[in-house]
Amino acid sequence: MTQYVYRFGGGVSDGDDATRGNKNLLGGKGANLDGMASIGLPVPPGFTITTEMCTRYYAEGQSFPDSVRAEVAGGVAHIEAVTGKKFGDASDPMLVSVRSGARVSMPGMMDTVLNLGLNDETVVGLAASSGDARFAWDSYRRFIQMYSDVVLELDHGSFEEALEIAKEDRGYFLDTEMLAEDWQALVAEYKTLVEQQWGKPFPQDVHDQLWGAVGAVFGSWEAERAKVYRRLNSIPGDWGTAVNVQAMVFGNMGDTSATGVAFTRDPATGENVYYGEFLINAQGEDVVAGIRTPQYLTKAARERANAKPLSMEEAMPEVYGQLADVFRILETHYRDMQDIEFTVERGKLWMLQTRSGKRTAKAALKIAVDMANEGLITQEEAILRVEPSALDQLLHPTLDPNAKRDVLTKGLPASPGAASGKIVFDADTAEKAAADGQSVILVRTETSPEDIHGMHAAQGILTARGGMTSHAAVVARGMGRPCVSGAGGISIDSKAKQLRVGDRVLGEGDILTLDGSTGEVMAGSVATVQPELAGDFGTLMVWADKIRRMKVRTNAETPLDAKTARDFGAEGIGLCRTEHMFFDAARITAVRQMILADSEKGRRAALEKLLPEQREDFRQIFEVMAGLPVTIRLLDPPLHEFLPHQESEFADVAAAAGVDVEVLKRRAADLFEFNPMLGHRGCRLGVTYPEIYEMQARAIFEAACQLEVAPVPEVMIPLVATKRELELMKDVVDKAAEAVFAEQGKRIEYLVGTMIELPRAALKAGEIAEVGAFFSFGTNDLTQTTLGVSRDDAARFLTTYVDKGIYPQDPFVSIDEEGVGELIALAVERGRKTRPDIKLGICGEHGGDPRSIAFCEKTGLDYVSASPYRVPIARLAAAQAALRK
Amino acid sequence: MTQYVYRFGGGVSDGDDATRGNKNLLGGKGANLDGMASIGLPVPPGFTITTEMCTRYYAEGQSFPDSVRAEVAGGVAHIEAVTGKKFGDASDPMLVSVRSGARVSMPGMMDTVLNLGLNDETVVGLAASSGDARFAWDSYRRFIQMYSDVVLELDHGSFEEALEIAKEDRGYFLDTEMLAEDWQALVAEYKTLVEQQWGKPFPQDVHDQLWGAVGAVFGSWEAERAKVYRRLNSIPGDWGTAVNVQAMVFGNMGDTSATGVAFTRDPATGENVYYGEFLINAQGEDVVAGIRTPQYLTKAARERANAKPLSMEEAMPEVYGQLADVFRILETHYRDMQDIEFTVERGKLWMLQTRSGKRTAKAALKIAVDMANEGLITQEEAILRVEPSALDQLLHPTLDPNAKRDVLTKGLPASPGAASGKIVFDADTAEKAAADGQSVILVRTETSPEDIHGMHAAQGILTARGGMTSHAAVVARGMGRPCVSGAGGISIDSKAKQLRVGDRVLGEGDILTLDGSTGEVMAGSVATVQPELAGDFGTLMVWADKIRRMKVRTNAETPLDAKTARDFGAEGIGLCRTEHMFFDAARITAVRQMILADSEKGRRAALEKLLPEQREDFRQIFEVMAGLPVTIRLLDPPLHEFLPHQESEFADVAAAAGVDVEVLKRRAADLFEFNPMLGHRGCRLGVTYPEIYEMQARAIFEAACQLEVAPVPEVMIPLVATKRELELMKDVVDKAAEAVFAEQGKRIEYLVGTMIELPRAALKAGEIAEVGAFFSFGTNDLTQTTLGVSRDDAARFLTTYVDKGIYPQDPFVSIDEEGVGELIALAVERGRKTRPDIKLGICGEHGGDPRSIAFCEKTGLDYVSASPYRVPIARLAAAQAALRK
Repeated sequence: MTQYVYRFGGGVSDGDDATRGNKNLLGGKGANLDGMASIGLPVPPGFTITTEMCTRYYAEGQSFPDSVRAEVAGGVAHIEAVTGKKFGDASDPMLVSVRSGARVSMPGMMDTVLNLGLNDETVVGLAASSGDARFAWDSYRRFIQMYSDVVLELDHGSFEEALEIAKEDRGYFLDTEMLAEDWQALVAEYKTLVEQQWGKPFPQDVHDQLWGAVGAVFGSWEAERAKVYRRLNSIPGDWGTAVNVQAMVFGNMGDTSATGVAFTRDPATGENVYYGEFLINAQGEDVVAGIRTPQYLTKAARERANAKPLSMEEAMPEVYGQLADVFRILETHYRDMQDIEFTVERGKLWMLQTRSGKRTAKAALKIAVDMANEGLITQEEAILRVEPSALDQLLHPTLDPNAKRDVLTKGLPASPGAASGKIVFDADTAEKAAADGQSVILVRTETSPEDIHGMHAAQGILTARGGMTSHAAVVARGMGRPCVSGAGGISIDSKAKQLRVGDRVLGEGDILTLDGSTGEVMAGSVATVQPELAGDFGTLMVWADKIRRMKVRTNAETPLDAKTARDFGAEGIGLCRTEHMFFDAARITAVRQMILADSEKGRRAALEKLLPEQREDFRQIFEVMAGLPVTIRLLDPPLHEFLPHQESEFADVAAAAGVDVEVLKRRAADLFEFNPMLGHRGCRLGVTYPEIYEMQARAIFEAACQLEVAPVPEVMIPLVATKRELELMKDVVDKAAEAVFAEQGKRIEYLVGTMIELPRAALKAGEIAEVGAFFSFGTNDLTQTTLGVSRDDAARFLTTYVDKGIYPQDPFVSIDEEGVGELIALAVERGRKTRPDIKLGICGEHGGDPRSIAFCEKTGLDYVSASPYRVPIARLAAAQAALRK
Repeated sequence: MTQYVYRFGGGVSDGDDATRGNKNLLGGKGANLDGMASIGLPVPPGFTITTEMCTRYYAEGQSFPDSVRAEVAGGVAHIEAVTGKKFGDASDPMLVSVRSGARVSMPGMMDTVLNLGLNDETVVGLAASSGDARFAWDSYRRFIQMYSDVVLELDHGSFEEALEIAKEDRGYFLDTEMLAEDWQALVAEYKTLVEQQWGKPFPQDVHDQLWGAVGAVFGSWEAERAKVYRRLNSIPGDWGTAVNVQAMVFGNMGDTSATGVAFTRDPATGENVYYGEFLINAQGEDVVAGIRTPQYLTKAARERANAKPLSMEEAMPEVYGQLADVFRILETHYRDMQDIEFTVERGKLWMLQTRSGKRTAKAALKIAVDMANEGLITQEEAILRVEPSALDQLLHPTLDPNAKRDVLTKGLPASPGAASGKIVFDADTAEKAAADGQSVILVRTETSPEDIHGMHAAQGILTARGGMTSHAAVVARGMGRPCVSGAGGISIDSKAKQLRVGDRVLGEGDILTLDGSTGEVMAGSVATVQPELAGDFGTLMVWADKIRRMKVRTNAETPLDAKTARDFGAEGIGLCRTEHMFFDAARITAVRQMILADSEKGRRAALEKLLPEQREDFRQIFEVMAGLPVTIRLLDPPLHEFLPHQESEFADVAAAAGVDVEVLKRRAADLFEFNPMLGHRGCRLGVTYPEIYEMQARAIFEAACQLEVAPVPEVMIPLVATKRELELMKDVVDKAAEAVFAEQGKRIEYLVGTMIELPRAALKAGEIAEVGAFFSFGTNDLTQTTLGVSRDDAARFLTTYVDKGIYPQDPFVSIDEEGVGELIALAVERGRKTRPDIKLGICGEHGGDPRSIAFCEKTGLDYVSASPYRVPIARLAAAQAALRK
């Protein structure tokens, strides 16, 4: 017969090797209590009703089989035996707590009922046995209040109100002023409230109380809030919850009693020192409530804080010593930093809870590395202990957590890090101010490639529109600039040079602070803390690099970015965009002349001016990446992105090209597109104007030939949908290569491949691989087309979409595995079938997202490519993915 | 041993049942010659060298095996035996023609060498045997000229020049003035030219001549032009070509000789009368050259044309009688109208060629129906004989083919039919002018939903931008208005009210004529011919309807469109868009008020005004479609399409909504999108503003409840990418339905389903079918997203793409079967697996394209939906697809 009840405490631990620590069966809390009991720690005795019982409870119409009633009776008897008290005994009653405990902590589930077992008779016994009538009646009223709220689901406001009135009537201000008889009177009022609202008297039978609470825990599993939470977090409904019934212990039984919480190491810094606080003569909720100021756990901490009240180490040296032993035992047993709750009842230490402690990124890193060095965990485990995306915090300046903040609004945390500076509303002003040594924040409704120089010059970027993968966000992450995007609460009037949030108006020169890690936008300056890349960081990276299978490259298009990325450990460039190079002020007129030419001859004349510039771009990048692969994407964006806007710019181009301004303007108007994302861009430019790609290919090969240590250029053709496109473009590149090699009298190795960024390309990957030597999955565009969502426009509905559970997360942040992922897997399969040694990588923004990196590992890609500041994240995530595979 | 040479003529026909009429082996021409010989028709004797020989020729390094040389010798002997002449005989030489003949007629292939077998000796024999020295020397010079051109590939210009000089020297104007000695002199000059250019004398050995010509035919298979043509038309390179060698017959041997071409029925009207022309004492090329005016074949035709020169029926009654017999035999044998070439040599009829004759749409229809009625073919064959898209010509007015045209430029043939009218540059003017009884042509750079009323009012629409599925094209086809779109040659200045083509400028009120079937744009008025929907049309439709498996619905959104479509045989509505209803002048202010509201309450206030209007829209359409299914797509386009543009419009909305104009304008600016196609549209509107869909659903059910014969509303949710979206939206619709049913006290049957128009929806079709009762493939958007091509912007490169063979045809016209098609097939498979009785249809523009309809049949869809004027095309195409399956 299935065992549904597992006892623990008092030397008993029903779990065996199969069930020990089995959260699936015992729930998180139950497993930990069982775990602590099994290693002999002082856990108040109790028992866990398993999650399997929950499932059966629902399968059988919300009822309990008799066998379970018997098992629970055995559990109660176990507690009685250990405590030497009787459940419902009028002279010295045994009291219990009842708590839910699912596999994972889950809002919406019934939380806790304390002091269960009190009734009109046992309260008198408790008063006698504890020698504290006030404590007994206070405990009873707390029990009625909790039970009415979470089990009977009565209006908790009316109970709070009754307490307030009771205090007012008596002229009291604090609960602590209430005397035994006051509590007793309140208990009577509470019982009346229960009968009024519930229609029945408050249950006096302690077994009815117990079964009522157990039923309420199981019942809360299917409560609306819990169901919504499960749906949003993809938690299966059939997991069920466990119930934990445990003897009460009291930290509020005088000055030899206490209650506290602790971490086995410092959760902020990761230092190997005990960290926590406690209160003498208090219950757990008092520590949390903040009415009394808790005391430090250790003498060192107290002295560091220059505090007066004695630490536990000083006030209760003996119990403290026991607690310190428990810390060591727990860390050795669980092999991780623990977050603990304990109670001291009349000098006796009881452990109520242990779990892995939450910690800052910095602490996570230090603890993982320390524990591996201490031999407590392996290097592999250390790698798995650090959340890769948390590293981001370590690589950028952060706001001083203690500084005051005047938060104006919150946008999307588009690029991490914090920055303060004067507001400027356009790129040119940003550049000028930066040249004058001023720190500026560039504020735009949205950014475009023309703003690049201003973004470079600025300390941070704020946009009113655009999502996590808008132009501003992508470019800012690439540059390592903090950025808050899509701050819908602000409206920007760049003509009037005003930024409006609600009724506050800021102008040019006003100071603004951005926290790109939280999305907060603050008025005025806020102090920042510079990152410290401690030795632990490097150590963990070395360990990660030993483990990972996938290579990590970077998306970089300037020598500076390339250098940053290489310093961060990039093993090549996975995406070198070439369009930003075209925006350079020195070149833009030639670029515009090319675009607005109405003949191949006109375009060639302009391209000839661009060739030496472009060659020098590549030469510098190749030098930084000497010997490593560099994937260069040929021109991709729609040409109208480069168009002049102002009269003077048109005049410049007209003069350079020797054409009439009006003709130019007409041609510019012709280039307008309704949906530029799906327009005349990518290889469509190369197909219609092969001379552009020819120039770029020539620049690549001429640059490569100039270097001693040649890189391995991988020429990448964007937006391919058919084999034929790639064939035509490869032909252009190959011809340019042969021409350059003939001129230079030397050959270098190179590859021609393609982005897979359209659904059709993924479907036809088998054919396309006949021509292309590599695929790089452009998951930004692949997501846009597969889902039919423009990332520049998605902000307006994507939040609602995630809120309503339509997408589990922003698909531009983490790959939509079901949709986009199926296409990638298909393309990998078909591409490899045609060309088994095809190189496969990813160069979309997802290449720096740990969840997506795990998908890439699973799908068998050869490398990921991330923006420079995400390279370390990608290295760690790739190692984790390899370990988990 | 493989037989490579097949003889025909003179009672011989080497083909057996397996090879008879085998175009793959004998080529098109060879198969027909063999066919005619096999049924005893008078074919000049000859032989065919098979396509297999061509393949072997290339496999063996362009050489001929000895066995083939022997077979060819046998073929030559066969011709000699039948004609009683000898090849190369100096006294009465046998002459032959050599022609290529691939499976399909193919430009770039060597065409024809006539009179082969003439040399300096045999020309003298020919002069003697024919008794006509001029004929003999003219024949020799023609042979040298052709042979030099197509076999030796010498510069044909120099030969033409020599002839011109010869005539000038002699003061002649016409070739016919050249005497025997003049031709003889020219032959000498030609031979000099050959020796100069070729480096060798013109070949005198007749066998050398023959093998040279045969080699040239095979060689031309791999000529550049032929290869390009094959690639563009997906013709495999290994098909090869056949060579036909045939005895020469001469129609220019005096007044008992003649040559002619004929159709066995009238190819223009389809009437069952002989149709053709001939010339006495002439060679085939003379008929084509147009120097002499050919004479009619039949007396009736001559009389009808009121012509003088005797018809062949009158001039050569005996031979004409033989020819008429041949016509009957050929039609019975080939069971189709034939296009014939014949020659009469000294009173003897020779058949040179027969093939299925090209015909007009009208003729195709009549011939097919007639032949089925005559018992010559089955009804099924009749169905297969008519090109469905040709029906389009029959349903719209066409330009009088004899009228003069002043063609300004050519755009895309976006919506068939022809129309003339005064130019107007905006929709309001169009409406006013039409109200005054004027015919107008609406000329726009591009159209938007706001132009609908003007498009309705206009006789035709011309746009400078946009492809075959641009807004203008789609709407015009739906309305049956002729439309030329994407006429890139014109530029429009709508402020100045001017249209510019090159250096010509037209203004408002100038007359313009459009041919929407060819894309021609003409200045001035051109006479049109109204369509005659003869009984044959109805007959064929009845036959088609018996055969087809798929239902044919229509895309219609007005009662008028619905009525038109029902008259054309639509079996329901497959796509009733609801957005155009929102543009009605009486409603647009309420619509704008809804869009610009910043709260649900504001939106609901506006929606309340729209509800009765929308209900009436649906009621009228339901009435027309009584008892048939009507698929209604809930609001789909991005809201900013409805936005005000002018100050006065903003003021109207502000007044109606009681909001400040500036607030409205800011909200309008917020709605701007970079890529509206991928923006906040489709069910994303319904998810964020459920009240809009709620109002529409209510309007649908209220309207349906009003009718005696209820339709079966199929409520369609657009742009779904996930099951969850459909779940949320179905919930909104179901709730509205229940509310209406409760109010009305009656229930009607309805379905809720979805468009499949995003790649992700196709991939997740299995899940989505758990919720949706039907799928309608929105292949316009599915093509846009799968290929990453915006149809509004594609004109700029799509032509180049088709020209370069990247796509075999415009993927917005015919489904891209390899890419989009794979997704559709996948969705069908996954959808049916989940819900075996799921209804599957297509409502993209492809639903009216025969090639795409064939794909739909193959993929197993239940119905196609086409614009009203394409419903007959779809019915026929669906029947053909069913027959071919």
